[in-house]
Amino acid sequence: MSLYSEINEQPQRIKALLTSQRKTVERVAAEIRKSGVQSVFLAARGTSDNAGRYAQYLWGARNGLPLALAAPSLFTYYKQPPNVKNALVVGISQSGKSPDIVSVLEECRRQGNLTLAVTNEPNSPLAQTSDFVLDIQAGAEKAVAATKTYTTELMAVAMLSAALSENKKMWQDLAKLPKWMSEALTLDDFIAQAAQRYRYMDRAVVLGRGFNYCSAFEWALKLKELTYVYAEPYSAADFAHGPIAMLDSGSPVFAFAPKGKVFDSMLEMLRRLREQISAELIVISNDKRALSLAQTPLKIPVDAPEWLSPLIGILPAQLFAYHLTRAKGYDTEQPRSIRKVTETK
Amino acid sequence: MSLYSEINEQPQRIKALLTSQRKTVERVAAEIRKSGVQSVFLAARGTSDNAGRYAQYLWGARNGLPLALAAPSLFTYYKQPPNVKNALVVGISQSGKSPDIVSVLEECRRQGNLTLAVTNEPNSPLAQTSDFVLDIQAGAEKAVAATKTYTTELMAVAMLSAALSENKKMWQDLAKLPKWMSEALTLDDFIAQAAQRYRYMDRAVVLGRGFNYCSAFEWALKLKELTYVYAEPYSAADFAHGPIAMLDSGSPVFAFAPKGKVFDSMLEMLRRLREQISAELIVISNDKRALSLAQTPLKIPVDAPEWLSPLIGILPAQLFAYHLTRAKGYDTEQPRSIRKVTETK
Repeated sequence: MSLYSEINEQPQRIKALLTSQRKTVERVAAEIRKSGVQSVFLAARGTSDNAGRYAQYLWGARNGLPLALAAPSLFTYYKQPPNVKNALVVGISQSGKSPDIVSVLEECRRQGNLTLAVTNEPNSPLAQTSDFVLDIQAGAEKAVAATKTYTTELMAVAMLSAALSENKKMWQDLAKLPKWMSEALTLDDFIAQAAQRYRYMDRAVVLGRGFNYCSAFEWALKLKELTYVYAEPYSAADFAHGPIAMLDSGSPVFAFAPKGKVFDSMLEMLRRLREQISAELIVISNDKRALSLAQTPLKIPVDAPEWLSPLIGILPAQLFAYHLTRAKGYDTEQPRSIRKVTETK
Repeated sequence: MSLYSEINEQPQRIKALLTSQRKTVERVAAEIRKSGVQSVFLAARGTSDNAGRYAQYLWGARNGLPLALAAPSLFTYYKQPPNVKNALVVGISQSGKSPDIVSVLEECRRQGNLTLAVTNEPNSPLAQTSDFVLDIQAGAEKAVAATKTYTTELMAVAMLSAALSENKKMWQDLAKLPKWMSEALTLDDFIAQAAQRYRYMDRAVVLGRGFNYCSAFEWALKLKELTYVYAEPYSAADFAHGPIAMLDSGSPVFAFAPKGKVFDSMLEMLRRLREQISAELIVISNDKRALSLAQTPLKIPVDAPEWLSPLIGILPAQLFAYHLTRAKGYDTEQPRSIRKVTETK
């Protein structure tokens, strides 16, 4: 089973990346600082788009960089791209092949911006059109659903943030990450059992906020691709502005609620869901108050800092999607209707 | 029924806005041009966030402005806002009250950026913290689900685009908009019948692209708020990168596919959905090829230009949500669990 082994090899991949790519990342960071870029313009699709959501929060909070997600069709179909100025233009793509992402980087480079590719294929068209390349070195990913290429993309984003801020504490945290990830993977047996309860679930909501906004989108995407559940991701704030009306007693809500700056707002939402709506809660957290509200609590390492929780918390989420796929009797390696490399314009 | 009358008064509201606000919009546009802003930084939630998505495509394509959607929690919970430079900072909010949106504008103004409020409440906290205010003059909106405040927000975005580009043809198109909108509302009886077929639908996908990316999000939001259907919005390109796996024979797919630059890509997706997956299609279009693929075709005016199609196509979508709510026996005025004004941090 490629998917299962790819999920489990993530701590080693992250550890190897930290060692092999630190110098490259620091060199790229020095060039970016020298260039005086004022913002980031980012293009990605699918799982890589979720890595972009992590960059939006992390680079915003730690590096002061506002980040815009590109609208690729303005570059391809409309041929009316915006004028992007003083920006670092980033393309994230496992294969480095999707023509729309390549188009965004080509045009923004032509406009005079600095370009950076984050990819598993350092000879891909995306890499060739970029000033800098961060090779995520995830090895061949055989399962169609991306797992190790997601966390290595997040790792590239995290390392670049540490390098841009020249923050020693961040590098120290990064060194501990493989251990925390391995610890999170020990939930495997518990999750294999817990997933049975959701055998007949066909729709769900997934909540996260701040650094874990990306986690909500990525867990939802894995549930959609693998288990065919209509899983809708939301920030807890956007969810309160309307979509919460969908929920009824027993409706399943998946949530990321690790300790950190947005924890209180997540806890408030979880209490509202449990007490006022009687929703069913599946919660990934390292705080007892959040875990105690859940029918299915998934406990991640207590001492991990919030900014790295997306790389740790997504592991039980991936395992949950894997085991639920098996419980439902679907194919974990090759979901229906999709291919590994999707080329869109 | 406030919701029904609010849907139907939209052509008049749009017509009135064009007359009463054109001078204000042109004055604001002149100030913006003079300031030399290089990008837009936009904060909004819920329906107003969808108006922001329209701005991202329209101001990008017609005015060359890249647009970033703010991550409000960086300003509120994290207190680590990005350094926003040379930007027009826009807050869109019907009530002008949500503290997170106000926080973004306050901080960005403090950083020295130009700020603009688009709101139905010109004395609201949001308006008071802004250099410029575009009053959408929708009148009191009594139904919890936003309809006329959405299209008047889009109209403010569209008028500002025409004013920034000093494009006479755009103003001529805008003058014809109320007529096209009235024509789209004549689908009412047809939709009241057609919605019956979806009485027991509990999940759906909504697709749009380019200028109508916002329309997919807004139709999905109305279905979620009013009919409690789990309706997932996607660009047709993002949908191909994974979530399409959710669909099975008979799965309902709602789509906006008006004539225009992205029509061919939408048509290709609709054909794939019909021919390879046997999905059920509900299509809003003014092109026979797209309409002929649908079990439920909703025909909008043929001569309307693509850039205004979001203001026209959303009307049958709102009517569909209204009639489906009645078919399901739910409350059209006051959905469960939500209030008219949602204040999030």
